[in-house]
Order: sequence, then structure tokens, then C-alpha cells
Amino acid sequence: MTPTPTYRLAVDDHIMIAHSLDDEFFGPAQQLHGATLHIRAVFHRVGLERHGVVLDIGEASAMLSRVLDPLRHRNLDEHPDFVEKLSTTEVIITYIAQRLIAELPEGHGLSAVEVEADENPRARAAVRMELTGR
Amino acid sequence: MTPTPTYRLAVDDHIMIAHSLDDEFFGPAQQLHGATLHIRAVFHRVGLERHGVVLDIGEASAMLSRVLDPLRHRNLDEHPDFVEKLSTTEVIITYIAQRLIAELPEGHGLSAVEVEADENPRARAAVRMELTGR
Amino acid sequence: MTPTPTYRLAVDDHIMIAHSLDDEFFGPAQQLHGATLHIRAVFHRVGLERHGVVLDIGEASAMLSRVLDPLRHRNLDEHPDFVEKLSTTEVIITYIAQRLIAELPEGHGLSAVEVEADENPRARAAVRMELTGR
Amino acid sequence: MTPTPTYRLAVDDHIMIAHSLDDEFFGPAQQLHGATLHIRAVFHRVGLERHGVVLDIGEASAMLSRVLDPLRHRNLDEHPDFVEKLSTTEVIITYIAQRLIAELPEGHGLSAVEVEADENPRARAAVRMELTGR
Amino acid sequence: MTPTPTYRLAVDDHIMIAHSLDDEFFGPAQQLHGATLHIRAVFHRVGLERHGVVLDIGEASAMLSRVLDPLRHRNLDEHPDFVEKLSTTEVIITYIAQRLIAELPEGHGLSAVEVEADENPRARAAVRMELTGR
Amino acid sequence: MTPTPTYRLAVDDHIMIAHSLDDEFFGPAQQLHGATLHIRAVFHRVGLERHGVVLDIGEASAMLSRVLDPLRHRNLDEHPDFVEKLSTTEVIITYIAQRLIAELPEGHGLSAVEVEADENPRARAAVRMELTGR
Repeated sequence: MTPTPTYRLAVDDHIMIAHSLDDEFFGPAQQLHGATLHIRAVFHRVGLERHGVVLDIGEASAMLSRVLDPLRHRNLDEHPDFVEKLSTTEVIITYIAQRLIAELPEGHGLSAVEVEADENPRARAAVRMELTGR
Repeated sequence: MTPTPTYRLAVDDHIMIAHSLDDEFFGPAQQLHGATLHIRAVFHRVGLERHGVVLDIGEASAMLSRVLDPLRHRNLDEHPDFVEKLSTTEVIITYIAQRLIAELPEGHGLSAVEVEADENPRARAAVRMELTGR
Repeated sequence: MTPTPTYRLAVDDHIMIAHSLDDEFFGPAQQLHGATLHIRAVFHRVGLERHGVVLDIGEASAMLSRVLDPLRHRNLDEHPDFVEKLSTTEVIITYIAQRLIAELPEGHGLSAVEVEADENPRARAAVRMELTGR
Repeated sequence: MTPTPTYRLAVDDHIMIAHSLDDEFFGPAQQLHGATLHIRAVFHRVGLERHGVVLDIGEASAMLSRVLDPLRHRNLDEHPDFVEKLSTTEVIITYIAQRLIAELPEGHGLSAVEVEADENPRARAAVRMELTGR
Repeated sequence: MTPTPTYRLAVDDHIMIAHSLDDEFFGPAQQLHGATLHIRAVFHRVGLERHGVVLDIGEASAMLSRVLDPLRHRNLDEHPDFVEKLSTTEVIITYIAQRLIAELPEGHGLSAVEVEADENPRARAAVRMELTGR
Repeated sequence: MTPTPTYRLAVDDHIMIAHSLDDEFFGPAQQLHGATLHIRAVFHRVGLERHGVVLDIGEASAMLSRVLDPLRHRNLDEHPDFVEKLSTTEVIITYIAQRLIAELPEGHGLSAVEVEADENPRARAAVRMELTGR
């Protein structure tokens, strides 16, 4: 018997944030600087829901947009959820992934969520969170 | 002992199709509209075949092209394999992946096939099918 | 004396349309098919306006969005502005450029407008319209 | 007689800056935020120099890198060349273009310099400066 | 009276060549090495021809492909048209542009041809040739 | 209990090599030709290290650069590590991945390394090596 195919749906958005990374580990990024983070949210599912999709694209984009709204045009050094923390790209995408998961509707049927961010044209980071007990 | 490396080879092509998604779930996409689907076929393999490749790139491209030919410049609402179905991007790539698998030569040695489609600059979907009993 | 620098600002959007090109010149594109057109609107200006920009990016994006709205998820073969016409990519972008120019506010100070469309991953077309008597 | 062909050579780099745009015209961008600016420097020439190039690519990249160094990981609100100014993308690329032109070696033979910056995945700006009396 | 709009149509292809640049000006590129050149051919026209296009896309792609065929998978150091020459990217695209112009059908109505090549992810060159007496 | 998130960090570089593939299986690629290989090195980790990153981006880029240095501007047919071998893209990225793994510092905590190469605009290959006993 062939296994059920697995699917993923990805939608894109972006945020433009300022921050500083206050640890000598980060060299020049200790200074206050900024980044356009190109964000891709990826929703994973085993099989499709009854309309033949992973998730409605419009709903997926709207969820991502709502999650990013409190970060748009912000200085993370003064953002209540990041103050006194190292707001590395990895930490920012972890935060976004957690918020996205909290936005998922009941009975979503998804198996995992990934968030990927291009921080510059030559470097990007991603996090993947498995959804258990879905 | 280190595990055998796993490989993937991806080739690209595209199709330009018309369709409508006849369910109010799809909002404005219920109207007859169209899409250029940028298709990536990804072939997975544990280790390499004897010429040091996953698959010959020319053969991979030709297989994908043959599979896409019956979809090029078509209205899927009137295509025998999609009529009366919801031809979502996910359903289209499932169809393409199944056809690609049917095209694979005997003894291909592949472990999985993925098909990914960019449906617009900000959204894409992918399916992955494991190949068992290879 | 050095000449005034010239500037351009580009914003992106996309439309997903169906159409057919009813002339044997177009081969398989005579059939009803579709396209995702990646649209770039480019606004040209000699020098900058008083806020140090060509145009406000938000305003530029909103103008492009308004112009594209009547084309989103449409079959151009039945669209009043394209019916009985050859809706080639070049014709569509000419239409978009004309509508964009009509949207420009009084005293915009722009020297030209371009509209570019990627019709598939390997082909794109653009139109440039000079703005005289600005 | 056919005219001499015209050439351009483009090299890429990027900067990650923080800034705020202190004018209500800029809406939410009045807040301190940031951007990764993908920078393309384009060098124009009528005909080629004696080695068959517009400019040595390594030299072009090194010039761009030197010009960008004082902007990397900086808050432009506190940068001596931008303090009290509106550091819009257009203003930043004008500054970069002027510095690039100042870096050009004697007898460079170029006819124009362009600097383009992607400020986010859906918007970019460019400036072109003609080089007279070369 | 508004001026006639100007148009351009671009089609893409690529070649994979080996070569060496035998002049100390080129540093490490004096050694035999190689490049995938991503080629974009751009056709310029004032106004459109009678089918509402700059040129048929299929014809444009076929012309570019014919011009590139003798360069595919070749070592330019031994290619009769490049032997004893510096085959810089600029020289290669000049050659391609000249051949493309020679391929243009009678009465093409084009005003210029450009050929652009990405030689690596961070550098590209382009040539533009005006077509007089069209 | 929710599983620990998994992370990946990717950095990009490129090499420009010449080579030939001396087996009739490879058709025209048996001739001496070349390629710009766009290289992405991807580092996988379960959870983050104590600075909130997978790996320092600067360190990751420097490791990749050191590994690629002996391949830059080389003819692999004469490179001691590839002579008499089929230097397919898959074989080259396996070599790069092995060298990258050898460069990893003690106690790196990574779970896998991937190396992906775009060999042309329409084809790319990747290898993934699990890191055991980390």
C-alpha cells in the first residue's frame, strides 16, 4: 500500500525591524542596525483537507500578516517580547512560528509549521515545529 | 559507521493553464481565471547511481516535459482528468507527481518524488510521494 | 554643471487571468489558457520630490493595486476592455500603464511610467510611456 | 555606420541599517525600524576598455564594498552624513552613487553610474547619474 | 500629442562554457575555469507589430537558442570565433548580440537588441546595440 | 510535551569551474565545458546554541569560503581530488559537504549538513549528510 502523500503550502510576507545583538559574539551586529526579513511560513499536512488544499491561501496569508503586524516597523530592542533578549533571526522566527501555531483554527489537521527568514541575500534561517496531538 | 548520504535533483518547467474552483470556499477564484505554474520536480535518492548522479538531468527534464505536455495551454475545466474536480494547485501537483512516478524507468533506485508549484510570487505548494518497494 | 540625477521607483503585484489569443500566429496559445502575470510598475522622475522620494511607496502600491483589481481572477475573453481584442502580454501592460497614468495625482512630477510583466519564468515584456507636459 | 554598442556591468552587495523617517508623510516608517538594502551598482560605458571589459569585476566589487563599509550595521539617525536628514532609500542610494563616482579611477571612461536598492521583496528604487567630461 | 510607447520583450536561456583569460589583468581567471552564463536577450521596439506583440515569444526563444547552440558545452579557448581572443563576458555577449541581429527576419521593426549575462550570482554584464535603418 | 524545534541556517557562495564528463552517458557534457555553481551550505541543529543561533553566520560563511577556495577558477579534470573521476554536480557537492564537516569546530552540536548547487537556471542538486555521535 502506498503511503499518503505529504503536502506543504508556503506564503510570503516581510518585516523591516531595527535591533542590536548585545554580546561580543556578534561583532558589528552589536551596534543598532536593521533588517528586512523576508518571511516564508510553511504549513505541512499529511494528505489534503476536503477542498483539496493544505489550507486556504488567503487564510494562510492573513494569519501570517496578523502575526507579523506587531513587529512591522519596530525596534525590537524596545519591543516587550524581545527586550533584554538576543533577537537573532533564529529567535525571531521561533517567536513567529509559535504565534502562527496559536492562530491555527481548531481541527486544522496540520503536522508541522516552518518559518524561514532571509536576513540578507546570502543567508537565511528556518525553524520547524512539529504539531503533535493534532 | 556514517549513514549513506541522501541526494536530490531538481529540474524546472512551467505550464500556463485556465481553470475555475467551483466552491464558495475559494472566493474570487470561483471565476474562470488562470495561472502560470512554475513546476519543480525533485527526485530523491539514497546514494548515487553508477555514473555519480541521482538521475541524468536531460532524462529528468524530458520526463517532466512529457508529463506536462497534456496540460500546456489548457483549460482544466474541460480537461478529461480534471473536469468536475477542484483543480487546486495541490490537486494539480499530485496529478503531476503520479504521472512522473509512472514515467520512471525500471530500477530507478529513487526513494521519493516531490513536485512543487509556485502559483504566484507569494505562494507555492508541494507534494512529496515516497517510493516503496523500489 | 552636473546633470540632475534621474530616479525610478518600482513596486510589484500580480494578477491571475485566463485568455485565448484567437489568431493562428499564436499556435497553442489560441486555446483558452491562463497566466500569472508578475507586474512591476516603475515610476521615473528627474530629481526627487520634497520628502526625498520619487513617490510614496504605499501610494505607488495602492495605485497599482487599484488598477489591477478589475483584472484579478478574470477571463479576459469576456472582459469588456479586452473582448474581441488580442490580449497579448504587451496589450495587457499597455492597458495597465494607461490606467496607472490616469491614477497619478496632480503635480506628480514624474517623467515616465513603465509596466513590466513576467509571463513565465523565461519570458517577460515591458512598456514605457513618456509623460509630457507634466 | 553602426553606432558603438553600449555596455553595463553590475555588481551586488548589501547593507543592514536602522533608521526612522521623521515626517508624518511616512506613516509607520516614522518609527525607528530597519532594512536590508540589496545594493546593485551598475557601471555604464560606450564601448569596452582595452581588456574587453567595462571595468574589472573585482575592482568594481571592491569599490562598492569600500563605499558601503561606513554604512554597514549602522543606525543612520546617528550617522554624521544622515543625521537630521530624511534617509529615504532614494537619499541613501544618491549618497552611495556619489561616493562610488568619487572612487572611480582617473580615465575610467564610464558614461554613467546607477545604484539600485531593493528595500523589500516588493519595492526597489534606483538612481542614475550621468558622468560628463569623462 | 503623446509619444508612441516603447516596448521590450526578453527571453532567457543559458550556456555552460570553459575558458581562460590570458592576461595578468584577470588574476585567477587566467586559469582555465568555467561559467554558466544566464543569457537574457531583450528586443526593443517602438510600438507593436500587427499581432500586438514585439515579436513572437516562440520565435524569439528559437532565435536565441540557435545563436547559443554553437557555444553550448564548449571550451572557448578552442572555439574558432574566440581562439586567441579575450573571451570576457562582455566579448561573449557582444558576439551573441551580433549573431542575434543577423538572425532577425526582414522587416522586423525592432529598434535595439540587448544581451545580458549573469556570470555569477553577484555580477552581470549587458550590451545594447541600436538598430539603424530598420 | 512538545518536541524541540529543529533549525537550519543557510549561507551562499559560488565557484566557477571547468570540467568534462568522460562517459557517453553524459552526451555533450563529455566535452570540456564549465559551470558557475551557486553553492548553498545548510547547517541543521536540534534547538539553538547558547547565543540563540544555529551557528555564527560569519563563521559559517568563512568555513564555506575556505572549503571552496581550492576549487575556485579551476579545471577539475586536472585537480588532484577529481582527476580520473566523474566530477558530476553530485560528486562535487559530496566533496564540499565532506570538507565542510571536517571544518566544523569541536562540540558544534549540529545534526546534519546539506550542500546544494544550482548548476544552471533550471537544474540543481543537493546532498544531505547526517552527523552522528555529535
